[in-house]
Amino acid sequence: MSKQIEIPAVAEFLRNCEDAYILIHMNPDGDCIGSGYSLQAVLKLLGKRSKVLCADPVPERFHFLLPEEPEEEFPAKSIISVDCADESRFGDLQEQYAGRVALCVDHHISNDGFAEYAHVEPDASSACEVLYKIYRELGVKFTKQIAECLYTGIATDTGCFKFSSAGADTHRIVAEIMREFPEIRYDLINRNMFVVKSPSRLRAEMLMLSQMEYHLDGKCTIIWETKAICEENQIDPKDMEGLTSLPLQPEGVEVGITIREQDDNWYRVSLRSADSINVSEICAKFGGGGHVKAAGCRLQGTSGEVRQILLNAIAEALNA
Amino acid sequence: MSKQIEIPAVAEFLRNCEDAYILIHMNPDGDCIGSGYSLQAVLKLLGKRSKVLCADPVPERFHFLLPEEPEEEFPAKSIISVDCADESRFGDLQEQYAGRVALCVDHHISNDGFAEYAHVEPDASSACEVLYKIYRELGVKFTKQIAECLYTGIATDTGCFKFSSAGADTHRIVAEIMREFPEIRYDLINRNMFVVKSPSRLRAEMLMLSQMEYHLDGKCTIIWETKAICEENQIDPKDMEGLTSLPLQPEGVEVGITIREQDDNWYRVSLRSADSINVSEICAKFGGGGHVKAAGCRLQGTSGEVRQILLNAIAEALNA
Repeated sequence: MSKQIEIPAVAEFLRNCEDAYILIHMNPDGDCIGSGYSLQAVLKLLGKRSKVLCADPVPERFHFLLPEEPEEEFPAKSIISVDCADESRFGDLQEQYAGRVALCVDHHISNDGFAEYAHVEPDASSACEVLYKIYRELGVKFTKQIAECLYTGIATDTGCFKFSSAGADTHRIVAEIMREFPEIRYDLINRNMFVVKSPSRLRAEMLMLSQMEYHLDGKCTIIWETKAICEENQIDPKDMEGLTSLPLQPEGVEVGITIREQDDNWYRVSLRSADSINVSEICAKFGGGGHVKAAGCRLQGTSGEVRQILLNAIAEALNA
Repeated sequence: MSKQIEIPAVAEFLRNCEDAYILIHMNPDGDCIGSGYSLQAVLKLLGKRSKVLCADPVPERFHFLLPEEPEEEFPAKSIISVDCADESRFGDLQEQYAGRVALCVDHHISNDGFAEYAHVEPDASSACEVLYKIYRELGVKFTKQIAECLYTGIATDTGCFKFSSAGADTHRIVAEIMREFPEIRYDLINRNMFVVKSPSRLRAEMLMLSQMEYHLDGKCTIIWETKAICEENQIDPKDMEGLTSLPLQPEGVEVGITIREQDDNWYRVSLRSADSINVSEICAKFGGGGHVKAAGCRLQGTSGEVRQILLNAIAEALNA
């Protein structure tokens, strides 16, 4: 288990570290990218070199957060991870870096304590919110890039302040960032994060909405992401990512299901709850898990069997 | 022209008023509803009775903001308007109340000074943001209903904090509301305002997306809301309202156009700009107007003529 440390100790660690590698999670999102690159910039302000490592490329819409200068090559003396709940989140970098992380900064309640030292705030909206407080403790003067990284991380991890994770502290921190950097085009960041869609993504959304199944008196919806659908409609399977919020759009839905076809009759299932149903408990029955309102599991069978298994479990939860 | 007054004078006005009618604008949205009903609740705390008047019914998703007790009947001694830029916004109530408004609280830069006294803050995200400061000046202790009214008004008028109108003050105020009322389910308010859609609304969105026209190398998109489309697809024309943001979703779009069919070959046109084009200038050419990024006008002709007129004007703006 990690030794849990508080913010002053994290600041002390950062003041003393050298030649750091900063690990962020695979399939990187706004929060881990904002966390990783803001930390790199803060370490630079402290006179330290560091590099951000990720198993997967940073998607283009986040490229504005990257530093302009090319990264230097050097061996790691300190290994830090941000926004990673466990080492499997390192993806292809797991083999190389597992067991070697000195400091982990995170906001996942499920953080499994893989690092030597850890600062985890399960009530924070995002890793960027946690890092904001650490940077204030360090007393560094933010650059525009740091502010953009933090705003983007906080905004994306809260669905643009929509989710319950966006609390008073979240809004206070954003107010402070905006007061310091009124010139940043937060509205354009939001547009690129939450509004703009590629043609293939638009096709994917339309198709999923038009083929959505309604079950259990409209309290449960299902969308199917099958290989055939992607091929027939020339949809990049990447554009199917993150569609799991779609099934919660129709009025009256309690549980929205997204089922992705895998190989050998296996299906990856994502459950989302509108409010009252604990989908983590439902997924746990099938060896999966997650959060109360967002959880997942894997099931094997025909599509009809998988549908029936899930509907039975959800009907039971709705009647409980 | 109105006499412009500052917040302490507005507070003084409210402390001295009696039996107030509070006018909100027709087709009421979250901001004017939150403004009107929070003001009624604040006046009640000051020991004054008031009623909120609107030309149109309050949509059901906002009913949670209304007071539980039925409104009393009494003649008006003070008439106040909130979130109305001019008296035409009163809709069917204009005839009865035009020229009679004593105090106007607003955030529209286009406010035409119809009231005797006015407090207008064009930089505020919403009328609710302005009223928050007035209530603080009054020193009243917020109720949960007041907090919910203010949050809903601010969130809806900023597209859940997405637009450039959501600034440091906006987030600071929301942080203060959340700190005082952590028990409010802001996430559920957001879900009902920004996520949940009726079946007819979902059909409308899908249809508009699937029939969207791409012009000028993808820099301009058009959606058509015709009577035939509504009838063929059993879409309530009300569910076509507010779809004007859809044409801005595709990557690379600079101007998104929504064209609504009216009678006698007239079309109501809404233009939305992603960033660089001033659509208010374009609409002004056709006798319309609005904001830099959201404007409208009316055009007469065949659908082909209307399309060509608009595309010519937008091509010119793009080349300028």
